[in-house]
Amino acid sequence: MKLIITKTYEEMSEIASNILLGYILSPENQNIAITGGRTPALMYEKLVTKMSGLNISYNTTFYNFDEIAYKRSKREGITISDLRSYFFTPANIPEENIHRLDETNYKAHDHLIQSRGGMDFILLGVGADGHFCGNLPNTTQFFDQTTQVVMSDAMRQNVGEFHFSDPQEYPDTYVTMGPRSVMNTKNILLIANGKEKADIIKRILGGPVDPLVPASILPLHPKITILIDSEAASELDEITINQYK
Amino acid sequence: MKLIITKTYEEMSEIASNILLGYILSPENQNIAITGGRTPALMYEKLVTKMSGLNISYNTTFYNFDEIAYKRSKREGITISDLRSYFFTPANIPEENIHRLDETNYKAHDHLIQSRGGMDFILLGVGADGHFCGNLPNTTQFFDQTTQVVMSDAMRQNVGEFHFSDPQEYPDTYVTMGPRSVMNTKNILLIANGKEKADIIKRILGGPVDPLVPASILPLHPKITILIDSEAASELDEITINQYK
Amino acid sequence: MKLIITKTYEEMSEIASNILLGYILSPENQNIAITGGRTPALMYEKLVTKMSGLNISYNTTFYNFDEIAYKRSKREGITISDLRSYFFTPANIPEENIHRLDETNYKAHDHLIQSRGGMDFILLGVGADGHFCGNLPNTTQFFDQTTQVVMSDAMRQNVGEFHFSDPQEYPDTYVTMGPRSVMNTKNILLIANGKEKADIIKRILGGPVDPLVPASILPLHPKITILIDSEAASELDEITINQYK
Amino acid sequence: MKLIITKTYEEMSEIASNILLGYILSPENQNIAITGGRTPALMYEKLVTKMSGLNISYNTTFYNFDEIAYKRSKREGITISDLRSYFFTPANIPEENIHRLDETNYKAHDHLIQSRGGMDFILLGVGADGHFCGNLPNTTQFFDQTTQVVMSDAMRQNVGEFHFSDPQEYPDTYVTMGPRSVMNTKNILLIANGKEKADIIKRILGGPVDPLVPASILPLHPKITILIDSEAASELDEITINQYK
Repeated sequence: MKLIITKTYEEMSEIASNILLGYILSPENQNIAITGGRTPALMYEKLVTKMSGLNISYNTTFYNFDEIAYKRSKREGITISDLRSYFFTPANIPEENIHRLDETNYKAHDHLIQSRGGMDFILLGVGADGHFCGNLPNTTQFFDQTTQVVMSDAMRQNVGEFHFSDPQEYPDTYVTMGPRSVMNTKNILLIANGKEKADIIKRILGGPVDPLVPASILPLHPKITILIDSEAASELDEITINQYK
Repeated sequence: MKLIITKTYEEMSEIASNILLGYILSPENQNIAITGGRTPALMYEKLVTKMSGLNISYNTTFYNFDEIAYKRSKREGITISDLRSYFFTPANIPEENIHRLDETNYKAHDHLIQSRGGMDFILLGVGADGHFCGNLPNTTQFFDQTTQVVMSDAMRQNVGEFHFSDPQEYPDTYVTMGPRSVMNTKNILLIANGKEKADIIKRILGGPVDPLVPASILPLHPKITILIDSEAASELDEITINQYK
Repeated sequence: MKLIITKTYEEMSEIASNILLGYILSPENQNIAITGGRTPALMYEKLVTKMSGLNISYNTTFYNFDEIAYKRSKREGITISDLRSYFFTPANIPEENIHRLDETNYKAHDHLIQSRGGMDFILLGVGADGHFCGNLPNTTQFFDQTTQVVMSDAMRQNVGEFHFSDPQEYPDTYVTMGPRSVMNTKNILLIANGKEKADIIKRILGGPVDPLVPASILPLHPKITILIDSEAASELDEITINQYK
Repeated sequence: MKLIITKTYEEMSEIASNILLGYILSPENQNIAITGGRTPALMYEKLVTKMSGLNISYNTTFYNFDEIAYKRSKREGITISDLRSYFFTPANIPEENIHRLDETNYKAHDHLIQSRGGMDFILLGVGADGHFCGNLPNTTQFFDQTTQVVMSDAMRQNVGEFHFSDPQEYPDTYVTMGPRSVMNTKNILLIANGKEKADIIKRILGGPVDPLVPASILPLHPKITILIDSEAASELDEITINQYK
């Protein structure tokens, strides 16, 4: 594990965009799963700028690692929509380089990834409650799940209401790569910023492996980088910082 | 994770020796930590036979991953003595390709491994109580330890008396690579055989991640192979076998 | 590069089967291209024995790296037929784990391999004339070919008559992975045995990179192992042996 | 091989600095050899900016891959001096993370790199005459050299006078990693810009492997990225660009 602490959110976003770009420019095909949400917004903005004008073909396939469908509308789910507006559309990623995980194909997801050579890189955020992807404190008993469907009640209990303006759009279930699928990735980058993440970062780096803090499993991955701004690092003690930096 | 079930202990030993030999014959330098104990005895016998007469130079460095010193005698500790008699001596491994972990150098162990390019491969056994290396049920609260010294009372409580004929040789402490150090290895092979391991294998593959079963963390490693004979696999159900085989 | 010299052909075959088995047992999916011909015959025999009775699912896909079709018969080509009789059939490799390269699909071959995560391992023989796969002294001007079709006149000039009892079966062309495709593999194992290979082994290990000795390019691969018996090594000098062993 | 063509030198430098930064920020120790000369000047400037203010410890060791000593002065050689002024000093790289290759230690260089886990990444420039590192058209007959000492007459013939203001400082020899050492690196990035490199880039990507064009060997590396600006790409045809981009 490597811990990188930046002064600002802007600097965290710059570094994250560089790391992600490194994978995209690899001479080998890459399978990359990336996160939606607010944390990576500036990172994607920077990445789109860096990629514009490059005369390359993409030998990267991008994946969403969870998906929350709309119950009534036929439109695409929340995660993939996020990724499109943040990244795929402005960066002109060809549709054939985008793989949508959803409720129709999740059962074959881990096998598909394996048949394509494995997941090379996953960019994760972390919730203040310790969730990553859709692995919530009350859905991650054993850490042994692969890609799965989860009852969305769990999400309501943990991370508040869905991001739906219309409550009738609440789905009954959502899909997510499970802890085992994520740990089976070759390289992980976890990003976090802001004071509201300081407590969970402290628990992840210094506390026990605990199903009630799902992200507590992540530091045991052999190739994980945790990239956070100074606010998210504000509750870490010197010993922890020096041990992992 | 890949699960390989062999019919017999002999076959398990044959496969394990082949996998280990593959690392030893790699064109790149390899750092390899290997286990003592009874489980690998036949594997080492087979490996020594396979290696005899090969006109190669060894670009492998071998490590012990734990060590129990004798309190009074000046002789080498239990683990390295095991490895010498099983493997290093009959295979004529040059002394410069052997790194002894002990109480004088354990603090620098993880850093040393990193400076040599990381641990490429670790061969582990597992105790009926779920311990691996010196990580015992009552010493592994957080899974976050690196290479460390442990009070040997813990060992007495868990795995019975030390293997000392003379009780005055009982040391007060022993050293071991911790869960984090082991998880930081690039490839892991866990071997187990016999009915007395059937219950712990079932708990490792099907149960929660639990500090009281230290080896329960291992299936979350992205590149672990679990190689067991049919007796050790006898309590696994078909679903588990088909999921991982 | 690592050079391994065994006393006998039998020992060379044993080591080669162990290395190949190591890839087949990997916890990750593997793409493996393997050679036909006489050199690996005993290796396949040993490999089949080692694999029999293992209760594993194969997450390896096997590939032929060249193919010579029959001109008139509808039967499968020479290479894949060799591989079936030596290995696929006795080892019960499921058909879905076999990918046949032939004249209908060679153009997409390199792209297909990339989309599956790259070729992990290739087992090569070498001809007394320095050819590897179908890369012959008079077809390999620039070393920059990928998988391609070649006029079979070249083969007649170099490696004698085809292995056809009926001359009317001689095809006009054959297909082969080119030097670039082979060099793009993650790991290479080159095997050779017998006095008739001693001269070419000497030229490969000690001579210039020369399109008239196609295999002369191979020692520049970062992860190649050259595994030969003492007869094939009989013209190497001590300096060369010590440099690479 | 992956070919990346940028519009400008500035953009080439930006991308190169991102790729290099990706290795520096790896959670694993990295051995990285980097180039002096004019081509990377802006890249280092950008890299220093990106690295400033990062609260990380460096687990990267940096290497020069060739060295031209001063004959009379006791000062450090030309290459390491270049690297210090461009990068090590402004980026505050600790001295313990810098390994100087010179005439006192070159014989042990390849072995040292291997004992540290291998060279992870090398950043190369290319001369208009096709040289890379100190591998010149008239010193690279067989492509099989490892790190070596070379008579500096060769350099005078090929790349003009040394960069010495005082002719009495001309050394009789210089040291360089040879073609085999460079090809033995895990990942290669070759950068080039400007019209004076257009012809050599064309020959490297489209011509034969030729000892008189030492860099012609590089495209056969399985993990090389060639990153050039539009001027250096100006003599490439569409087929070549589409094949490799």
